[in-house]
Amino acid sequence: MSSGTAGDPRPAVIARRLANVRRIIAVSSGKGGVGKSLISSTLALIGASRGHRVGLFDLDFTGPSAHVILGAETLYPEEEYGIVPPVVSGIRFMSIVHYLGDAVAPFRGTDITNAVTELLAITRWDSIDTLFIDMPPGIGDMTLDLIRLLPRAEYVAVTTPSRLAEPVVRRAVTLLREQDVPVIGLVVNLDRKSDSAPDTRVSFDGVPVIGRLPYDEEVERAIGVVDGITRTRFAYALTPVYERLCPPVQA
Amino acid sequence: MSSGTAGDPRPAVIARRLANVRRIIAVSSGKGGVGKSLISSTLALIGASRGHRVGLFDLDFTGPSAHVILGAETLYPEEEYGIVPPVVSGIRFMSIVHYLGDAVAPFRGTDITNAVTELLAITRWDSIDTLFIDMPPGIGDMTLDLIRLLPRAEYVAVTTPSRLAEPVVRRAVTLLREQDVPVIGLVVNLDRKSDSAPDTRVSFDGVPVIGRLPYDEEVERAIGVVDGITRTRFAYALTPVYERLCPPVQA
Repeated sequence: MSSGTAGDPRPAVIARRLANVRRIIAVSSGKGGVGKSLISSTLALIGASRGHRVGLFDLDFTGPSAHVILGAETLYPEEEYGIVPPVVSGIRFMSIVHYLGDAVAPFRGTDITNAVTELLAITRWDSIDTLFIDMPPGIGDMTLDLIRLLPRAEYVAVTTPSRLAEPVVRRAVTLLREQDVPVIGLVVNLDRKSDSAPDTRVSFDGVPVIGRLPYDEEVERAIGVVDGITRTRFAYALTPVYERLCPPVQA
Repeated sequence: MSSGTAGDPRPAVIARRLANVRRIIAVSSGKGGVGKSLISSTLALIGASRGHRVGLFDLDFTGPSAHVILGAETLYPEEEYGIVPPVVSGIRFMSIVHYLGDAVAPFRGTDITNAVTELLAITRWDSIDTLFIDMPPGIGDMTLDLIRLLPRAEYVAVTTPSRLAEPVVRRAVTLLREQDVPVIGLVVNLDRKSDSAPDTRVSFDGVPVIGRLPYDEEVERAIGVVDGITRTRFAYALTPVYERLCPPVQA
């Protein structure tokens, strides 16, 4: 795998690979452990359950877990003029875990960027409505590289009500906006006071709060059991978020 | 701030700065959001409450939060032949937040490494028993740099019982051990079934489980109120962990 250079053809290749992906929604957070992977996986499951053409790309190299959530540990992409994602519960699914594998060597940032760039350049998503991306936590080198490689992406930020999460996520949202990236909504997860619809008057540096998801013990038990996940209170609370993010396309 | 080079004098300067620090305990995790900052801050509080000379160095550049936990947002280090950490509730306290500040420019990995190296080279800890380090999450470039800059550090890993955390933390522990780093214990946080002492027969790739900490709603309310934190069930459960990590020194 070669290093990215000014003459690197891969950004143009990536744009062609994604030409028939209508929208790219990157689920991001300043902080780990807030539920970013569960939210991106469940959004994709909700889309698939409605017959929408959805993809999910787990690029959280710090702890890829969408394959565990979807119970897809044994599914691998196939090679055919590129890499074809396996279909898991109706979702076209790719994960960086297939390329990190069980390697015990830690990856330097440049290696990660090369691996992700390569994956984006070789994956055949074909025609889909929405590609959800499970982003790495924080706003580090990889996030900056992805902003450059995926200029069409729209960002959803995830936080929790904790006083330890909020300032970190606020800073991440500010950083994203400083990069001229559209941050289209904030989801507050693990909300112990969640009862009803979010107060949409609340905004977070101008980003609307588009969902409040309850802490739900069932989710841990449902990990790896797709039908179980979609029946949790967590998934029910996420459904209006999906509808807001992906309104029906007018024919 | 210059880039690190082979002729960089700072690693030797760092070793001299830390010459009178008896032990360095780095609190690490593969995954964010597992409570690493609360655990390292509370371990330092427990040590200080016993009259031990403790330091706390928050190097989690992805989301520094020890200053929030300790209610030390307005305390800054002073310059005097280097940087002198302020004393917060008996803890000598330094944080990378003082150097990241409210900058909205994202930091590239090399900038972070330079900032951390510089901080380690200029901070005057003087004579202390234990320096706790709140590490960045994951095993990325910064962790590899810290392993090189702090060869005496012993590592404590933090996980939760979640099926999404465990494989990520397991991989991080494996990576640390592959770097010939001593991983002296695993702490399981947010354990909803926690009742009593950990089953020390349980090990995690050979690393003993030295504590199980309950999920404790009081902790969120106690953030920023040091007396409040040390009176939580969480802190009580962490006390035997401190005693195991820092047994009394035989005179």
